[in-house]
Formats: sequence, C-alpha cells, structure tokens
Amino acid sequence: MPTLENLQDYQQRIDQYLESALKKLPINDAKLHEAMRYGLLIGGKRMRPYLTYITGQALGANIEDLDGVAAAIECIHAYSLLHDDLPAMDDDDLRRGKPTCHRAFDEATAILAGDSLQTLAFDILANHPLSPAIDTKRISLIQQLVGAAGYQGMCGGQALDLAATDKSISLAELETLHSLKTGALLRASVLMAAECATSVSAEDKNALEQYAHNIGLAYQVRDDIIDIISTDEELGKPAGSDLEANKSTYPALLGLEGAQQKADDLFQQSLQALSRLPYNTQNLSDFATFIIQRTH
Amino acid sequence: MPTLENLQDYQQRIDQYLESALKKLPINDAKLHEAMRYGLLIGGKRMRPYLTYITGQALGANIEDLDGVAAAIECIHAYSLLHDDLPAMDDDDLRRGKPTCHRAFDEATAILAGDSLQTLAFDILANHPLSPAIDTKRISLIQQLVGAAGYQGMCGGQALDLAATDKSISLAELETLHSLKTGALLRASVLMAAECATSVSAEDKNALEQYAHNIGLAYQVRDDIIDIISTDEELGKPAGSDLEANKSTYPALLGLEGAQQKADDLFQQSLQALSRLPYNTQNLSDFATFIIQRTH
Repeated sequence: MPTLENLQDYQQRIDQYLESALKKLPINDAKLHEAMRYGLLIGGKRMRPYLTYITGQALGANIEDLDGVAAAIECIHAYSLLHDDLPAMDDDDLRRGKPTCHRAFDEATAILAGDSLQTLAFDILANHPLSPAIDTKRISLIQQLVGAAGYQGMCGGQALDLAATDKSISLAELETLHSLKTGALLRASVLMAAECATSVSAEDKNALEQYAHNIGLAYQVRDDIIDIISTDEELGKPAGSDLEANKSTYPALLGLEGAQQKADDLFQQSLQALSRLPYNTQNLSDFATFIIQRTH
Repeated sequence: MPTLENLQDYQQRIDQYLESALKKLPINDAKLHEAMRYGLLIGGKRMRPYLTYITGQALGANIEDLDGVAAAIECIHAYSLLHDDLPAMDDDDLRRGKPTCHRAFDEATAILAGDSLQTLAFDILANHPLSPAIDTKRISLIQQLVGAAGYQGMCGGQALDLAATDKSISLAELETLHSLKTGALLRASVLMAAECATSVSAEDKNALEQYAHNIGLAYQVRDDIIDIISTDEELGKPAGSDLEANKSTYPALLGLEGAQQKADDLFQQSLQALSRLPYNTQNLSDFATFIIQRTH
C-alpha cells in the first residue's frame, strides 16, 4: 500500500481547523456543543479533506482557501454519520471503535448535533476568509456543497439505501445509490478544490470529475469487501453487518471475486482520467491505490 | 383581532414558490420527495414568510427578492418541526391536525426529509435570482440564516428546551431559550428582509431587531397561554401538552395573569420600536397585535 504523502500533516491541519471552528461557538448549551465535538473530532480518516488538499495543491490552490472547503465537507460528512447511526436508520452502537453519538449522549442530542453540524458546514463556507480571486467563487462553492449534501446528493442516496434494505436491487441501482450517498461528497471534495484554483479548464474539471466518480465507487466496492473479509476489531464495528442488515452490496451481486474485479476496473478508469490532466497527479493516483488496497 | 393585510395572497405566493422549488428536484427517491413536500406544504400559518414580506415591502424591497428569503426561512422552520416532532424529541403524533411526518411516513424518512429541507434552505438562498443591488448581499443573507438556524440560534434553543424539561428554570433562562429557539428565526425574517432593501440605516435595523425580538418573545408567551386555554380541536394537537411534558412555560413561572401582562409589555415594546422607524409600519404593528391576540 502506498504511503499517502503528508497524510498526518493534513489530518492534523483539518483537526486543528475544526477544533478552532468549534471553539468560536459560545457555550450556550454545553451538552450539544460537546456532542458536536464528539461527532466532528472523535477521529476518522479525514479522507475527504485529504482529497481536497491533494487535489487543490496539485492544481496550485492556496492551502488556506482549501481549509474552508475541507472543513465544510467534513462537517457534512460528520453530520451524516451521526444521523445514519441513529436507531431509526442503521442503528449502530459503535463507530470507529467508540460508542456512536446517540449512545454516548442520547438520541435527541445526536439529532440536534447533526443538524447543527450541517449548519456549521454552511457557516464555514459563508465565513471562511478566502483569497480575493477565490472569494468571488464563494457562492459557487456553496452551490456545489448544496448539490452534494442534500436531496440531490447524499441525503437522496441515504434514502435510496434505506429503501434498498431487505430488497434485491440491480447493479445499476446500487451504483446510483452509492454515486449519491458517498460519491457526491467525494466528487465535491475534488471539484470544490478545483474551484479554489484559478484557470482550471472545463476539460480538466471533467477529467477530475471522472477520477472522483471512479474512486468514489471503488471506495464503496472496497468498503463492501472489507465488511466481509475483516474482523470486528479491525473495523471498529461488527464485521458482516451489511449482510446481517440485508443490504445490497457489490459482493452480494457480483460475488467476492467479481467485486474485486469491479474495484480494479474502477481503479484503472480513475488512473485513465488522471492521465488526461496536465498536472502532477502522483498524490491522486496514490490515493486511488490506497482506496482499493485499504483493509479497514 | 386585526385583519392581516394580504395574508392570503402572501400565503399563496410562498406556497407556490415552495411547490415549484420542490418540483425542480428530480424524483430520485419518491418517498423522500413526498416527505419533504409533506413537511413543507401540509399547511401552516406561514407567519415567518408573512413577516418577511411585510417588512420588506414597508422598506421598499423587491417582492421577487423577498421570495427567496421567505422560502429559505420557511424551509428551516419546516425542517425543525419534522425533527422536533420525532419520538426522541417532543414525540408528537399530530401537527396542524394531521399525522406528524414520522407517523405519516417513518422515522428515518422524517429525519432525512428534515436534513434535506435544511439543505434546500441554503440551496434556495444560494440560487434564487436576486436583483443586482441585492445579489451583492447574498453571502450576508446566507451568513444571517446560518446564525439564526444553527447552534447559535434555533438548534441551540431546542437543545436548551430539551435540557429544561422536567426542571425548573428561571425567567431569564426561559427567555434565552425562546430567544434562540423561535426568536432567532423570527429576527432573521425581519432582518433578512431589511437586507433586501437598499439603504436601511443601522439605527433602523436596530429598531427592527428590537421589534422582532419583542414580538418573538410575545409569540412564545402567547403560545404558552394558548396551550392552556385552548381545546385539542382548536390547536390541532393535544392541549396542555407543555404542562404534561413538564416544560417550563411563562404561565408556570408567572401565572396566567402574569403571563398575559408579560405579553402585553412585550407588545408595547414592539410598538415603541416601530415608532422609531421612518416607514409606514402599519402592517408590522397589526402583526404584533395579531401575535398577542391569536387564539390558535
């Protein structure tokens, strides 16, 4: 597995940013504030922020501009985890080896912390200082996050996922589901980073979107595979939980070997997209390799 | 009780706007789309949009600009109702005489519909066509909605409300709670409307904020009073439910007569704030009268 360049640096960077964003909020309600912090800073691989940073830096964006984008996207991701884990949704007790937010606090607080983290995402995008050339694209950044996060993106995908439980769906339907549920935010991580660079051509943006689309699906296929081949301890949550929850997965539809082949195909397509770009995309191709080789 | 000028016209106007905003969304997931529609269009007095329209029109704002502000605020309000009604929160079965969203659909769908409506609010604010002079203030409008909706506003207030259940809190604490839970969005309805007008002085904005603050609290005091003096049928939900849920209310802290006096004081203060404004504020003072005289 390739070493992801500067991974720890970027993780620390985004954690510090998020920590300071939370510190700026007054402590009107200590419990809600703590639950937001729990949801946002309990850990996590920070894959979306990492993707934003490496994309933006490959394209020559300012890292200070990327901070706001990365943080807003991570707030949306964190809120979605709080809500997806709820008893009425996936009913998960553990997340990253620790009690889920509604177990550590209570359901009402987890709902409200998720709601508040969604607002915080737009708070950050609306208020984060941007360099003058990028400040003119602030509305465009907000529009992109809206498209990725809401009914037309992540929320819509989660609804399709819930509807697909205890039902067999086609490969095309599974692809639409994941393209919205996890893909939309990964695409936003790449494309919003591109928005923070000046003069990225429409053609290059198209190649970046192709890259993001393919690694987004590859990520999910790999996730499904990991759920089968891992132990509870490696996952930090019960292994095989997708199967148990009667969720449609790539291995269920294609077999384990077919799913592995699918992941490889998507990986190759992501590299092809990168090859069309006139930038140094080493970190992006390493990231694609990481996605399909990771074991947890 | 005064007739609210153009109330039905504005109600129809905002309903049409919201209907068309929903129609623009693709039907990826019919159930989620329907639940969003149920949450947004099942009825409601549209008090916040009305307040936005009458404030904006008093100050000379374009009604087309106000449409976007009113719709975004109503989306935030609607999402908060879906989440507040959930079993983990207020556990309400009825809203406006009809089954609450999680009863008509299911809990997961009500959570996701709420999440999607929050995003839709920012979608509308980020994409609604604004006249050129106001378009430059779009980010400021988004910043104001963020402040009113999230941890520092409505969500924070709901957390304080949950924390105050089964506990006696002081009058000052009750005021902070309501100033956030319902007050923040009512203030935004007025101040975001003012943002849509050109050249409103800081002094006038201050008077408008005072007006909004006072009618916001008056609205809540009156709400508490209505909960005691009304029948189930008038309310469209069980009367006396605050008392039953052991919630702190103005009548509980001040007695029914004291609460009435409090509402009257707030009413007078709201009129005083209006008297400082160099505009025709008849509709705004009628609205204040309506707030403290309404019976449901």
